[in-house]
Amino acid sequence: MVGQEIFSEALLSGMAEVFETMMFMSVEECNEMYEAIEGEALLSSITFKGAVEGCLGVRCNLNCAQAIARNMLGSDAGQTLSEEEVVDAMGEVANMVLGAVKARLADSVGDIQVSIPTVVKGKELINSLGEQSFEVSKMVHVDEDVAHIILLYRFTTQAN
Amino acid sequence: MVGQEIFSEALLSGMAEVFETMMFMSVEECNEMYEAIEGEALLSSITFKGAVEGCLGVRCNLNCAQAIARNMLGSDAGQTLSEEEVVDAMGEVANMVLGAVKARLADSVGDIQVSIPTVVKGKELINSLGEQSFEVSKMVHVDEDVAHIILLYRFTTQAN
Repeated sequence: MVGQEIFSEALLSGMAEVFETMMFMSVEECNEMYEAIEGEALLSSITFKGAVEGCLGVRCNLNCAQAIARNMLGSDAGQTLSEEEVVDAMGEVANMVLGAVKARLADSVGDIQVSIPTVVKGKELINSLGEQSFEVSKMVHVDEDVAHIILLYRFTTQAN
Repeated sequence: MVGQEIFSEALLSGMAEVFETMMFMSVEECNEMYEAIEGEALLSSITFKGAVEGCLGVRCNLNCAQAIARNMLGSDAGQTLSEEEVVDAMGEVANMVLGAVKARLADSVGDIQVSIPTVVKGKELINSLGEQSFEVSKMVHVDEDVAHIILLYRFTTQAN
C-alpha cells in the first residue's frame, strides 16, 4: 500500500505548482500560528476513481477565494468579482490541483479518472468520504490568506 | 435541448423510488409550509459526466440523516449511529438516487458516467456548479423530516 507521505507530498507540491504557475501566488504550509477559516467559506471539491479513489478539496473564506479568482482572471486587486466567477475559478482550482496531484501519483497508484468539480458555500465545512478512508489535510498560506487542502482517499479492490 | 421538467420529474420520482424501496420511507414534495433546514446539516453529493454533466445533492439536518441511516441499516428507532455510519449511508443515498435518475434520463440524454459520493457537513450549505448551469431544486418531506434535493447540470459539447 502506498504510504500517506506520498499523498501528502503530492498534494502540497501539486498545489504549490498550480498556484505559482497559474495564479502567481505562493503556497507555504502553515506553521502552528495561523488564523482559522471562520464565517462563510467555499469548499471546492473534485472526486476521482481508479486503484485509489477519493476526493480533493480546497477550502478558504470568501476573501481568499476572491483573491484566487482575481489572480486567475488577471483582474485588478480592488475589483470584486461575481459569485459565479469566483465559484468557476474555485472549481477550476480543484481541477488543476488534482491534475498536478494525479501526475505526481501516476507512478505509485496508476491512472485515475477525474470527475468534475463542484463548490459548496457554507460555514464550518468539513468534507468526508465515509468509513475506511485516509485523509491528508494541510493548512497553507496562499500569499497572505489561509486555505485548507484536503485529500481523502481509499484503496479499491483494483489496488495491489 | 432536454427540458427542465424532464430532470425535475426524474429527480423527484427517482428519490421517491429509492426511499420507498430501500429505506421504506415516504418522499413527498413540500407545499409552501415546511420548516427550513437550520443548524448543522449534511450535504451528500455525487457528480456525473456525459452529454449532460453535473451534480446531484441531498441535504438534510443531522436528525433526518440519522433517520435515513437507521432505516437503511435496519436499526432501532431509538439508536444513535456513529457519524461515520451516517456519512456512509448519506453517500449511498446520493449514489442510489443518481442511479435511479440516470435510468430515467437514459432515453433523453444517453448514458452518464457516475463518480463517487462525498459528504460535506456544515451550516447554510449551498452547492453550485458555476456559470452556465441549470438547477432543479426541491424541498421534500422524508417521513416527518425535511430534505432538499438538488440537481445541477449543464449540456456539454457532446450534447445535441
